[in-house]
Amino acid sequence: MPEPNAALVAQIFERAEFVRSLGITLVAFDYGWCETKMAITPAISQQHGFVHAGAMMTLADHTCGGAAASTVPADKDVLTIDNNFSFLRAAAGQVLTCRATVVRTGSTVAFVEARIDATRDGVTTQIVSASSILSIVGYRPRD
Amino acid sequence: MPEPNAALVAQIFERAEFVRSLGITLVAFDYGWCETKMAITPAISQQHGFVHAGAMMTLADHTCGGAAASTVPADKDVLTIDNNFSFLRAAAGQVLTCRATVVRTGSTVAFVEARIDATRDGVTTQIVSASSILSIVGYRPRD
Amino acid sequence: MPEPNAALVAQIFERAEFVRSLGITLVAFDYGWCETKMAITPAISQQHGFVHAGAMMTLADHTCGGAAASTVPADKDVLTIDNNFSFLRAAAGQVLTCRATVVRTGSTVAFVEARIDATRDGVTTQIVSASSILSIVGYRPRD
Amino acid sequence: MPEPNAALVAQIFERAEFVRSLGITLVAFDYGWCETKMAITPAISQQHGFVHAGAMMTLADHTCGGAAASTVPADKDVLTIDNNFSFLRAAAGQVLTCRATVVRTGSTVAFVEARIDATRDGVTTQIVSASSILSIVGYRPRD
Repeated sequence: MPEPNAALVAQIFERAEFVRSLGITLVAFDYGWCETKMAITPAISQQHGFVHAGAMMTLADHTCGGAAASTVPADKDVLTIDNNFSFLRAAAGQVLTCRATVVRTGSTVAFVEARIDATRDGVTTQIVSASSILSIVGYRPRD
Repeated sequence: MPEPNAALVAQIFERAEFVRSLGITLVAFDYGWCETKMAITPAISQQHGFVHAGAMMTLADHTCGGAAASTVPADKDVLTIDNNFSFLRAAAGQVLTCRATVVRTGSTVAFVEARIDATRDGVTTQIVSASSILSIVGYRPRD
Repeated sequence: MPEPNAALVAQIFERAEFVRSLGITLVAFDYGWCETKMAITPAISQQHGFVHAGAMMTLADHTCGGAAASTVPADKDVLTIDNNFSFLRAAAGQVLTCRATVVRTGSTVAFVEARIDATRDGVTTQIVSASSILSIVGYRPRD
Repeated sequence: MPEPNAALVAQIFERAEFVRSLGITLVAFDYGWCETKMAITPAISQQHGFVHAGAMMTLADHTCGGAAASTVPADKDVLTIDNNFSFLRAAAGQVLTCRATVVRTGSTVAFVEARIDATRDGVTTQIVSASSILSIVGYRPRD
């Protein structure tokens, strides 16, 4: 298996203010996959007290970005162009975990799939199924 | 045109902690549509300094929810089951506005489409195109 | 595992004129999954000589329908409300196979995922990743 | 408005065997949009007698391809990488019409949206809402 682009994966999680403010943390990654988690708190809830779809979509989008990033060369970067989400069940419990897997990285786009599971009192259930397409673009160092 | 379910639309925006924390505000709505806005701040940025896809998806999801809610009877509520997003351009500027329009409300699901525009120095450009499907469920008052 | 609704799965494949005309055949199914195949012929090609996306989407849609049908009670039927497809590679070879798996069947909708693989000279490669949401409706016998 | 790539649009409709066999015809196009139609016949029906989702997805996919093709230079071609469809109502009547509109053509991908309407006894109703993302690739003449 090729070496993952570890520098790019690290950057994606360190520099995204919005992702840090939600408490999303990188759990593990290697070439072609990425795992993250996010604690369930009142701050990410919607009107019924469940986790807001927007917080879960942020988690999945960013984890797909991490997985795609792991597969590109050092002079490349990734940008989401399309996301699709199925919400299987309302999300409640203590923690959400997300695992994203690259289905294919071509020369211009990467296809990634992800699932989010909620753990409630020790029981883990899938709550979201997602797919993401990312454009592979030139890497530009940020000042 | 029928009367909108104004009570449900109002609840959706008042009670969602995550939406309030992002500064998403309800601009206007009537039967079948909803408009919102969100100021662009560093708190919602991703690693390149643009607005994070997750913040934009939260804005679109919630605005689609508001539009769908406006079309259901007083004893009903809505829950997102599917979202799809196309990211047309990187988002930068001062403010994002979102307009969601109901394409069809059936007996069990509602189909909604939305667009997000970014305004930068007085110039407004579409940056996201979205579609959402919501399940129409019984309304349960929250304690 | 519950018994599959075999009568409904059979009907879906016997009575759909369009599916028969494309040469789509039911390979196997049980509760929660369905497998099909379709020979690659010039009749289903697009302008570059590859398999037309429309033929592949028909294959995936119908196989997802079969998988969802296998999970509903005898007095219910299924109707597609949303489909999403990622086209990973151009499709060429001798035969396409599709496997659809139900992720969740709730009371009003079923969530299904599918993949299509192309076999070319004995080598099999995934070419499409798909997801489908179906509405669960009352069964009406057809005259 | 720029000149449409009329040669590419024409090729897309002339050379796709599958599209011709379904009776899909090009009605009109210009830079950034394309319109088509397809007669409703038993040959494209599903198990309930309505138009099969696969036939409608073929119509929408190909019309989106025509719209995207109209916007690319003479040395470029387009290939679908993602499609999303919402099925608003069962389709019945005499004819389906599809209109696809390009939302944005960038340097590597084009974003297109489409709707399908069914006309039944003179009354026209929207039945499908679709979005498509196409990759812009180098044009290769076919022998």
